[in-house]
Amino acid sequence: MNEPESRNKNGEALAQRVREAMYARDRAAQMLGIEVAEIAAGQATCTMTVREDMLNGHDICHGGIVFTLADTAFAYACNSRNERAVALQCSISFAAPARVGERLSAVAEERVAGGRTGTYDVTVFGPDGATIALFRGTNYRVSGSLV
Amino acid sequence: MNEPESRNKNGEALAQRVREAMYARDRAAQMLGIEVAEIAAGQATCTMTVREDMLNGHDICHGGIVFTLADTAFAYACNSRNERAVALQCSISFAAPARVGERLSAVAEERVAGGRTGTYDVTVFGPDGATIALFRGTNYRVSGSLV
Amino acid sequence: MNEPESRNKNGEALAQRVREAMYARDRAAQMLGIEVAEIAAGQATCTMTVREDMLNGHDICHGGIVFTLADTAFAYACNSRNERAVALQCSISFAAPARVGERLSAVAEERVAGGRTGTYDVTVFGPDGATIALFRGTNYRVSGSLV
Amino acid sequence: MNEPESRNKNGEALAQRVREAMYARDRAAQMLGIEVAEIAAGQATCTMTVREDMLNGHDICHGGIVFTLADTAFAYACNSRNERAVALQCSISFAAPARVGERLSAVAEERVAGGRTGTYDVTVFGPDGATIALFRGTNYRVSGSLV
Repeated sequence: MNEPESRNKNGEALAQRVREAMYARDRAAQMLGIEVAEIAAGQATCTMTVREDMLNGHDICHGGIVFTLADTAFAYACNSRNERAVALQCSISFAAPARVGERLSAVAEERVAGGRTGTYDVTVFGPDGATIALFRGTNYRVSGSLV
Repeated sequence: MNEPESRNKNGEALAQRVREAMYARDRAAQMLGIEVAEIAAGQATCTMTVREDMLNGHDICHGGIVFTLADTAFAYACNSRNERAVALQCSISFAAPARVGERLSAVAEERVAGGRTGTYDVTVFGPDGATIALFRGTNYRVSGSLV
Repeated sequence: MNEPESRNKNGEALAQRVREAMYARDRAAQMLGIEVAEIAAGQATCTMTVREDMLNGHDICHGGIVFTLADTAFAYACNSRNERAVALQCSISFAAPARVGERLSAVAEERVAGGRTGTYDVTVFGPDGATIALFRGTNYRVSGSLV
Repeated sequence: MNEPESRNKNGEALAQRVREAMYARDRAAQMLGIEVAEIAAGQATCTMTVREDMLNGHDICHGGIVFTLADTAFAYACNSRNERAVALQCSISFAAPARVGERLSAVAEERVAGGRTGTYDVTVFGPDGATIALFRGTNYRVSGSLV
């Protein structure tokens, strides 16, 4: 928040490189049409349009696909500093259904950064800004970097 | 558990009809190759083989896809009595990575059935029986039936 | 947010009456010295000072006591409109230890209000404003009112 | 499960020593009358009787106190091998109310043990064996031992 602009720019440049390296191998995100719209140190925004083949038996977007969008934003946010991290535990509260053709955005933000673990909040928004789901994830930093 | 066999058979017959009706419309499950291998009153088992296009940037099955498999088993289990239910809140703990080509099974069981809400546990197993993930879901019964 | 001031004032007056009625019977909150510092429609703030008899074997405030503070703020927030509600499911992420003598504040806010269910976020802060814990709760409205 | 009896006995003897060392300093458990009834490697059972001063404004045991009982069983189970561990994230689903005078039991079992993290399930039972709550916790091993 109060970082000097130069360091912030470096953080963003590094985050951009992480995004490119991760996304090139992220076949699941590509398969679902998930895009990483924004990324910076500790945060990321992903977008996805609900397709016909994402609907469940209730004719709304499968909760697992909504989760996957949120989890992807979480993954990019918690790897954004080029320290390899994996998800330990995630939870999601479903607030409203998402319908075919709707463009969803998942905004991930770091809430807590501890020694080797952290907590991120992700909110999934519908096209009108309504809350579709609230996601919270706990990550664990393993050794290694991404770029 | 102690139900007469005839009623149990009716429960299973009804659950089978719910499965067919739900699955015919469940385009997300179909798209991911998820199959509903077993279903009975309050329980369901789903299977899925990890495909190349389900991998993430760490070269393992995307956590969202593992969640989707578990969430699908949860959905079939909690609709199995032909009372329409939706997921309110779900959580998942990731225990071990799933790799391309592995066949996963998600076994869902009702733990608590209250007035209009319930709690289900789903365990996702790898091909060797190892635990891949632990999922827990809270559902809410809305009005309406499936068949 | 955009409610007319008069309605807001009514909402606060009602919330205050709910607080008094609930707190008079809330022996657990009283036993732990939890106070309901603020309440309005859909929100509440509770405070508590960590006592010697709240410490665990690691010499920090027992996680269950931190949870109880957060859960109390959640309970007052989700009953604040005088519609009786109970907790279905809650989760907590522990960010930093709380030490003896520290005054903690738990700030609860409604994030989602659905038909009969809702989602609330509660943040527990330490005396210096640091985040001690992040709590999220799902409630279910039962019939009846509090005052 | 299949460990030689001698090793099992050592594991239990160590767990007993951990229990004594932890409990002597566990003022919160003592204050609430929580007892550690059983302990072994990766598991623990705690008991507590619901007192008048544990009731909330709905005249049932405060959810935070039920959580504290479960969290205590979790803590003893995940420290039982004499490796110091702390809770990262916990969730609880409330199944049925607990009333004054009822004796509750919380049974904790390790579900997943990874590198430095693990997942435990705790079920809280009422006096008649009914399920009161389902708890799941993620722990993180820090350096140090307890005895």
